[in-house]
Amino acid sequence: MKIAIFGYGIVGKGVYDIVTGNKLSYIEVAKILRRKGSEKSLPIITDDFNDIINDDSIDTVVECLGGLEPARTYVIESMKRGKNVVTSNKLLLATCYDELIDLAHEKGVYLLFEASVGGGIPFIENLISISRVDEITGFKGIINATINYILYRMTKESIDFDVALKEAQGKGYAEADPSSDIDGDDVLYKTIVASNVASGKSYSIDNILKFGVRNLTKEDIAFFTENGLVVKLIAEYDGINKMLLVMPELFDKYTAIANVPLNNNYIEITCKTEGRLSFEGQGAGRYPTAHSVVQDLVRIHQKSAKPELTTDKVVVCYKDFTDKFYVKRKGEKGHFVNGMNEKELRSDDILFVAKVN
Amino acid sequence: MKIAIFGYGIVGKGVYDIVTGNKLSYIEVAKILRRKGSEKSLPIITDDFNDIINDDSIDTVVECLGGLEPARTYVIESMKRGKNVVTSNKLLLATCYDELIDLAHEKGVYLLFEASVGGGIPFIENLISISRVDEITGFKGIINATINYILYRMTKESIDFDVALKEAQGKGYAEADPSSDIDGDDVLYKTIVASNVASGKSYSIDNILKFGVRNLTKEDIAFFTENGLVVKLIAEYDGINKMLLVMPELFDKYTAIANVPLNNNYIEITCKTEGRLSFEGQGAGRYPTAHSVVQDLVRIHQKSAKPELTTDKVVVCYKDFTDKFYVKRKGEKGHFVNGMNEKELRSDDILFVAKVN
Repeated sequence: MKIAIFGYGIVGKGVYDIVTGNKLSYIEVAKILRRKGSEKSLPIITDDFNDIINDDSIDTVVECLGGLEPARTYVIESMKRGKNVVTSNKLLLATCYDELIDLAHEKGVYLLFEASVGGGIPFIENLISISRVDEITGFKGIINATINYILYRMTKESIDFDVALKEAQGKGYAEADPSSDIDGDDVLYKTIVASNVASGKSYSIDNILKFGVRNLTKEDIAFFTENGLVVKLIAEYDGINKMLLVMPELFDKYTAIANVPLNNNYIEITCKTEGRLSFEGQGAGRYPTAHSVVQDLVRIHQKSAKPELTTDKVVVCYKDFTDKFYVKRKGEKGHFVNGMNEKELRSDDILFVAKVN
Repeated sequence: MKIAIFGYGIVGKGVYDIVTGNKLSYIEVAKILRRKGSEKSLPIITDDFNDIINDDSIDTVVECLGGLEPARTYVIESMKRGKNVVTSNKLLLATCYDELIDLAHEKGVYLLFEASVGGGIPFIENLISISRVDEITGFKGIINATINYILYRMTKESIDFDVALKEAQGKGYAEADPSSDIDGDDVLYKTIVASNVASGKSYSIDNILKFGVRNLTKEDIAFFTENGLVVKLIAEYDGINKMLLVMPELFDKYTAIANVPLNNNYIEITCKTEGRLSFEGQGAGRYPTAHSVVQDLVRIHQKSAKPELTTDKVVVCYKDFTDKFYVKRKGEKGHFVNGMNEKELRSDDILFVAKVN
């Protein structure tokens, strides 16, 4: 198979490295698209999208640009020309899901996106395989490696948010503008994508309850530690009640999820007949994510069955939560409350909220 | 696709239940083979193997008999007649690996065995996918649910081995004759099968170091607990040093592996570029294992690529172990020693030995 890679950053370069290794001689990287003015360190690098779209010998494109545009246009134009698409772009998938899935269907091409959620964990593939045989009743887990690193360090070292964030940036785990991670948007995009795959339908992103960790302080963490609890930023999908939630959650310090270290991800899938399955693995980094992209390329090469996805709409409705919450409001100290409803959770004066497990 | 199921016990009945559910209408169970004299609770039940082997419309057989014979003969005869085979039989695979793999190759049929190792965990499938792209450098984990249940209960409740074993038998987790579990043979078979898949080669089973938990007492457990350690029966594969080991191992009580509860399995895979990946899930029980069998049926239906396995021989050679061990010899109290070699480990007077992590 002949492929083109859009973007030559962390993931794009990782894909190139793995594909040009010795195991995958049946994949040829014909072109790499880089921004105008980028260094042309390889002869196959081009800054002209038309070089790729007009080359009928390229059957598959790998989109590792990130962001909405030009990724969306490139992916759509590629599918329109009959090319398969592999993408790691959760923002693109979460916001243009129906458009992309419908177009892939119409054109009979592959649209695969293992790398968009869970880094090196084969999360999407397992959701697809399980749903062919079983009913997925839910998943729950840590799917943002940057925030897990920050929360892990804050908890271990009793340091403040900004200090842990700087450390994460120094290690290359956090971007220069980490807002999408901190405010939970990154987790929201991934939760939508994974819930869509788990349900085979299309969840509306608009009204999902989403909370981040922006106003979390070391005083909050000290309070959690006193109570034997550990905070993690959690993606939750409840397929039975059609409920999606992005929220910091508190776990007993002796549970597996509370002990997920550093930049790791952890996901638990629950199914009707198979029971519970959990996965832990590196959630960020060049090679784990690139590995997931390459697994998708291998699936296309092997003509694996396409996932059975639809764009049938599902809208989330929240019942009142009977759980215990930790809530910190403007001008107040954080404290536990029992039960909250959607309206209370959407209140403007909440600085930080976490559900207790 | 039209299938026959050999055996209608825990797994066979589970496969029948899942396949006749509402998701898999493309799989038809044409025949079920039961022992002569068994109840004919369904019209498709037969006690004559010839009814199946001579039916050319049956393209795939599912072997859930367990044991070596007649499973081996039935599987071989089926492949010779061009039928695909799905099996959960680790003893058969471990002892007849080369014969079965070579025959499947020769006949161009599928021979899939996800359910033979790790119950509901997609362990074999992940080894196959990862090895297509990456080099698997090793795996390590808990792959015997019966023993994990016994060790978990002994550690939690300070009860003796026999009491925990009776409890496991009462819950249906342990067989009437649990020797294969207790002496590590079950783990050995699974370790061989998984190592063969991970390496794409065929490890000789003959000289693998294998230790069980037969002589473990509550006094040993109390000693481990005093030292902050938890004992687990472990399968270990080191692909770099070509080393396989089946041995009780001791882990710090705050690690994920030390906290794997009840009848669960836990496996960690290490790879060259992808890093570490771990899986936890139910290791025994009708539906988790049957689910894995059905996943293999779906792979055949979808004409998934066959795993690239060979029977190139690999023989294990043990270097001296520099690890710390807990050793209990005849007439002695258990104690820690530093470093052991193969000869020392094979000494007849060892009642119980465990490697410290």
